[in-house]
Parts: sequence; C-alpha cells; structure tokens
Amino acid sequence: MFTAQPIGFIHSPFHETSAIPKGLGAKHDAEGAIELLRDYELGLADIEGFSHLFVIWVFDRADGFYLIAHPPADQGLPHGVFATRSPRRPNPIGLTVVELLGREGSTLRVRGVDMLDGTPVLDIKPYLSSVPAEKLRRGWLAEAEKRGSSQ
Amino acid sequence: MFTAQPIGFIHSPFHETSAIPKGLGAKHDAEGAIELLRDYELGLADIEGFSHLFVIWVFDRADGFYLIAHPPADQGLPHGVFATRSPRRPNPIGLTVVELLGREGSTLRVRGVDMLDGTPVLDIKPYLSSVPAEKLRRGWLAEAEKRGSSQ
Repeated sequence: MFTAQPIGFIHSPFHETSAIPKGLGAKHDAEGAIELLRDYELGLADIEGFSHLFVIWVFDRADGFYLIAHPPADQGLPHGVFATRSPRRPNPIGLTVVELLGREGSTLRVRGVDMLDGTPVLDIKPYLSSVPAEKLRRGWLAEAEKRGSSQ
Repeated sequence: MFTAQPIGFIHSPFHETSAIPKGLGAKHDAEGAIELLRDYELGLADIEGFSHLFVIWVFDRADGFYLIAHPPADQGLPHGVFATRSPRRPNPIGLTVVELLGREGSTLRVRGVDMLDGTPVLDIKPYLSSVPAEKLRRGWLAEAEKRGSSQ
C-alpha cells in the first residue's frame, strides 16, 4: 500500500461544506482550478486534447467514517456508504468529473468543481468513455428523484 | 493526508500484466469479483440498485512513476502521465468502471475488470452520470484511433 501525497491543490469558490450544492438536482457548474505542484507539470503534456478529466482527491476535512451514510439527496435515509458519495469513507477519497476549460503551465482551469478550496489532489486521468444511458441504473437515487418530483 | 488501506481485494482472471487487454480496441468484458473485507460489508447496503460502479484501487505491483508515459494505445508515443492510464503514477491509484452483476454477502460479481488478481481495492462509488458523447473530446487517443484505422 502507499501513503497518499498531493500532486496539487484545488482552487474552488467553496470555502465551507455547506456552500457546495448537494442533493437532488444539484448543479455542479462552478469554475475552479487544479494547481499542480511544479514538479509534476511535465505529467500534464497533451492533456489539453481531453474535454473532461477524472480528478481523484482527498476529503481532507472529513473526520473518520461510517458504513451507513444518510445522503441529503435522499432526505437523510440510510444507505451503505459505498452506494453513496459521502465524504466519511474508509479511505477518504473523492472523485469528480470536470470539464477542462484551459491550461496555463501547471494550472488547469476546470468547470464542475465540487471540492472545498485547498483540497489536495491525488491524481488526474483522462475521461474516456461513458456508459450508455439506456444501460444505466441509478438505484436509490433514481427512486429519490421520483419521490421528489411527485411531491 | 492518509495511508491507503484495502477495503477488499479483486478476483480477476488476470495473473500477469501482459494478460490484460490493452491498446486500441481492447475490450474489458472480463468477469471477476470484488471481495470486501467482512468488516466493511454493511457499507454495501443498497448497492444492488446500481448497474455500474466506480472501483478505486491500487497499482500494487507498479514500481515508482514517470511523468511521461508511452501507452500501447498510441504505439508507445510519449504523453504526460496524467493524460494516460499508465500504472506508474505519483499516487499508484487505478480507476475502473465495472458493471455490477450480482452480490453475495460481501462479494460483488462484476464485469469489466482490468485489474490483476489480488489487487487491493480502496473505494467503491456508484456510477451516476456520464458526459454526453457529443461533448466528449478524447485527445491523443482519438488521433491514435484515426491513425490505426487508416493503416
């Protein structure tokens, strides 16, 4: 195994967890930046060709974990933590798909940040493919959306 | 930051890196399983409702990292490591989208494994949304595919 080391940090308009859009219909179109540590800049070569990136990051302000989460997207009903995006996970790892808007040296301007300002980044990968909508089932979240729209 | 701890391990038909389909047109439809450590089984509650999962795992047999990778998908041409899925990354973290076929207790049967047998798993998250095909650009990989099909 390994000890996670930041390759960079997030610049985000969100300074408190409560400011991040959550729950059903939350839009993640906030703009921000990924500022890589200079030592890693060479690893960004050719990244401009990709429209979307996976960002793997650390819930560095989450404290401990629960196996059952109560996501706001489902009125606080209980679900297994691995069936949610709850920050309190055994390994406090976050995953976000962002749109790449541009690059200046070791800084990537991106849309779709849902991390707190200053969040440590562990990895960036190209987003390559997607699961066709007709093959995708979204479990309790789809049910929560149905309940929400009928209220 | 934190020290990565396995929540479980992958059962895969692949025992050597060379056996994993790589490069252009590689199909990832191999079936395997994620066997969670029993302590974490409760965290799987309600996961059966999701058709696809993100699996975050460790390249535990990769040794060190390079900032420039030479992916087989592009005839070994150089690209920044963060624009590739190379195993030799500053944080040796892998990410795979799998289809959930079924669950027996703490074991998830899945399709689409591209990890070695015995790979440690760090996290599982529901796969919720996808980027529409018409908005996706795939950088050097799309160009490599074009070159490949014209040969």
